Amino acid sequence: MAGSDLCIDLNADLGETTGGNPVADDAAMLEMVSSANVATGFHAGDPYSISKTVKAAAERGVVVGAHVGYNDMAGFGRRFIDYNPAELASEVTYQIGALEALARAAGTRVQYVKPHGALYNTIARDEKQAKAVVDGVRAFGDIPLMLLPGGVAVDVAEKAGLTVVREAFSDRNYNPDGTLVPRSEDNAVMHDADEVVKRVYDVATTGSITAVDGTTLQVDAQSVCTHGDSPGAVELLRGMVRRLADDGIEIRSFL
Amino acid sequence: MAGSDLCIDLNADLGETTGGNPVADDAAMLEMVSSANVATGFHAGDPYSISKTVKAAAERGVVVGAHVGYNDMAGFGRRFIDYNPAELASEVTYQIGALEALARAAGTRVQYVKPHGALYNTIARDEKQAKAVVDGVRAFGDIPLMLLPGGVAVDVAEKAGLTVVREAFSDRNYNPDGTLVPRSEDNAVMHDADEVVKRVYDVATTGSITAVDGTTLQVDAQSVCTHGDSPGAVELLRGMVRRLADDGIEIRSFL
Amino acid sequence: MAGSDLCIDLNADLGETTGGNPVADDAAMLEMVSSANVATGFHAGDPYSISKTVKAAAERGVVVGAHVGYNDMAGFGRRFIDYNPAELASEVTYQIGALEALARAAGTRVQYVKPHGALYNTIARDEKQAKAVVDGVRAFGDIPLMLLPGGVAVDVAEKAGLTVVREAFSDRNYNPDGTLVPRSEDNAVMHDADEVVKRVYDVATTGSITAVDGTTLQVDAQSVCTHGDSPGAVELLRGMVRRLADDGIEIRSFL
Amino acid sequence: MAGSDLCIDLNADLGETTGGNPVADDAAMLEMVSSANVATGFHAGDPYSISKTVKAAAERGVVVGAHVGYNDMAGFGRRFIDYNPAELASEVTYQIGALEALARAAGTRVQYVKPHGALYNTIARDEKQAKAVVDGVRAFGDIPLMLLPGGVAVDVAEKAGLTVVREAFSDRNYNPDGTLVPRSEDNAVMHDADEVVKRVYDVATTGSITAVDGTTLQVDAQSVCTHGDSPGAVELLRGMVRRLADDGIEIRSFL
Repeated sequence: MAGSDLCIDLNADLGETTGGNPVADDAAMLEMVSSANVATGFHAGDPYSISKTVKAAAERGVVVGAHVGYNDMAGFGRRFIDYNPAELASEVTYQIGALEALARAAGTRVQYVKPHGALYNTIARDEKQAKAVVDGVRAFGDIPLMLLPGGVAVDVAEKAGLTVVREAFSDRNYNPDGTLVPRSEDNAVMHDADEVVKRVYDVATTGSITAVDGTTLQVDAQSVCTHGDSPGAVELLRGMVRRLADDGIEIRSFL
Repeated sequence: MAGSDLCIDLNADLGETTGGNPVADDAAMLEMVSSANVATGFHAGDPYSISKTVKAAAERGVVVGAHVGYNDMAGFGRRFIDYNPAELASEVTYQIGALEALARAAGTRVQYVKPHGALYNTIARDEKQAKAVVDGVRAFGDIPLMLLPGGVAVDVAEKAGLTVVREAFSDRNYNPDGTLVPRSEDNAVMHDADEVVKRVYDVATTGSITAVDGTTLQVDAQSVCTHGDSPGAVELLRGMVRRLADDGIEIRSFL
Repeated sequence: MAGSDLCIDLNADLGETTGGNPVADDAAMLEMVSSANVATGFHAGDPYSISKTVKAAAERGVVVGAHVGYNDMAGFGRRFIDYNPAELASEVTYQIGALEALARAAGTRVQYVKPHGALYNTIARDEKQAKAVVDGVRAFGDIPLMLLPGGVAVDVAEKAGLTVVREAFSDRNYNPDGTLVPRSEDNAVMHDADEVVKRVYDVATTGSITAVDGTTLQVDAQSVCTHGDSPGAVELLRGMVRRLADDGIEIRSFL
Repeated sequence: MAGSDLCIDLNADLGETTGGNPVADDAAMLEMVSSANVATGFHAGDPYSISKTVKAAAERGVVVGAHVGYNDMAGFGRRFIDYNPAELASEVTYQIGALEALARAAGTRVQYVKPHGALYNTIARDEKQAKAVVDGVRAFGDIPLMLLPGGVAVDVAEKAGLTVVREAFSDRNYNPDGTLVPRSEDNAVMHDADEVVKRVYDVATTGSITAVDGTTLQVDAQSVCTHGDSPGAVELLRGMVRRLADDGIEIRSFL
């Protein structure tokens, strides 16, 4: 029967409320996504707000991932920091462990790790930091690492025996070589709901992405990254989720 | 021979190095104590230095405890903070979990929790925060809590089913009512090595403490808190450890 | 015509953006208020966002005040901290000086100080911290302190020779004794636009406030505290500002 | 008479005590140096300890400089951070202003700026960050910037009209090209007291440095950087200061 076998994992950054000030509409997002990249207190999030987010995720059956980042609240983890690899590895292990304790208290577990912001981008090209992140994850345990397809970190992680979950962005345009169109370009972000739905549909059906010039990129994506950091973003996602339901595509964790 | 059965747990605050600047001589202390209260990054300690401390503790067979504190690096956790109890409980769970991950990576475990500084003192008299700490520990798991004998937190923890480890201070004078002579008093601290050794010997043999007026306080102490935050403190401890060995008193974890 | 001489100072908390995540709509608020309580990086705000806020304030002729708070980003300065008074005084001076440098770079100055959150509430009743704040302000210079009328800090500040600016809240109900109806009560906040406008009009004309039971409280308020931390709050304020203009009440700094 | 006109500025990093834990022996150092690079709370230092250091500096006539650093307490400012230049400039201005307020309260002023750690090293080669630091200083005021001779920042600062104070390190070996022998090399640090005294004497008399191969480097140094972060370092400095006095070389600020 058509559509019945199709499914897609939608992930989003949550738990970034700091000092009581929310960054995204976590409650709305948890109704839609299947994987929550939960902040761990280094780039954002305080233990109490993190705790509330993992409880809400557990109640809705949303899978919890550790959204580990640089130790830089003031910069929201968006600035590259030139760490000693052993320092970075320790910070990664620390963050996953902290979230794991809050997750277990809420009846769930940390089931994957996704690096945040500048750390995510850095390890796509910097082998030293990629290894540090992989070391930090493995020191915690054997859980999947969600990464940008094609980056250095993918190889490092797979060679080290970690499962890699490749993700596509729901609303970013890609160059024919698989890199993202930089935010400095006019066409960095896709604003058309139809295009966004097509992106998700392509990933769900074939794991591929269509680049700006029409090239099909076979990236084997298993998850689509969505955003809830503006009322507009939440509405866009809501529309997409309805259309996926209409098309018989189930939103389901990559696990 | 009589002394052969006597043992005592010595604990000390370790892992407080922040940004590469040590607070105590961790290496020297780990040669002497049986329990390490390891900082968890909130009052002091960064993940890398914490990681090195738990590795060294694991190598020497020193038991690792989570030295949880208020989120106040600038004040070294020495200032009371009026937390919402749920916030405090979440912070306690977060800290234990973070340390647990680093401890497991080093081949050991977090085997007890000791609150630090203002949090330690507050929960000896503030039931609300005592409950929050106990909730935070239990959310992590069923591990012992090291506390000041006679404080409110002892009752709260035991009623909640946690094992309580009562500790005595190696070098502080006690009032006849079991409270510490405040640091504002001239005789707050014991400087005489003989007195310090007698304190440890009393705890090892009877679990009791002798107050400043000679009163015997039966506090059922199972551990003695020592300090390594000055060269003098380390030397004092070294002398005491030698005398304990001469007296046939073994230094061994309370576990 | 009567109304032509009437004026009122409206103040609001601004510059609390941290790591790029806004707490309020600073741009919208700066179009309406005459005094900006600008965060100083301790409870919220990073230097860059603070810098942008003071520049925008300078361009619009909005007076800049230092919104000094406890050193507690994770708690947004809303938790009481039991400081050593000398520590608190130093932190207050540090914060004002930091903002002053950014303000001067933007062509303006710090022209008053308003304590934030738990510090604001604490010094209304705690003489020790009130003195510390006053000491910290005086160590910076002779600038006015904006306070809750009737609190301990008012006396301490005036005895020390500082000018005190008493403020009223635009949307909070008051008890007959001049204290705020606690947020735990149903009628803590006034939601009716007419009531809010009457509050401002009363302050502008007589400096008084009407309590929930109809009692007139002569508090000599010179400023009204407004909020911009939700779309609804900004809209409510916009409506009020229009009505003040219609009534010929000018929005003007208390200076 | 020989030597009677000779003088040299000795500078040292002070005020880095955080949470009550000292990094150096500030009191001992303030008896010997003429310029204090005082931490500003970003890489180290809390307002209260900073305040005590500037008071002690003022009492001894030691000139106060702002030791501005990256916002990275956990890394002690020793990790490169890839800032947006406007963010970095704002942070520099913020830090100088904060210290200026504490300095004025102590009866002195911030009279120069010296970047710390990774920021110091970065701006010797990274023009973008060098410009940001210079912008941040100029936004505060026209005060000298203490820098590594030969670095990019020297040119940027001088072109922008700032006075540059070039410094030499008391105990580091230099390559013939004027760069420091990296700490990874065996001969990075000079341990011989005679060599250290010769370094200071050379700077005092000719502003030059002798490289490891004997080459004379004419770097026009006006200040010598000393260290007080270990008992050994303080003793070494004490010996050097005595010999400078014997040789008739006065320790005096570069101002």
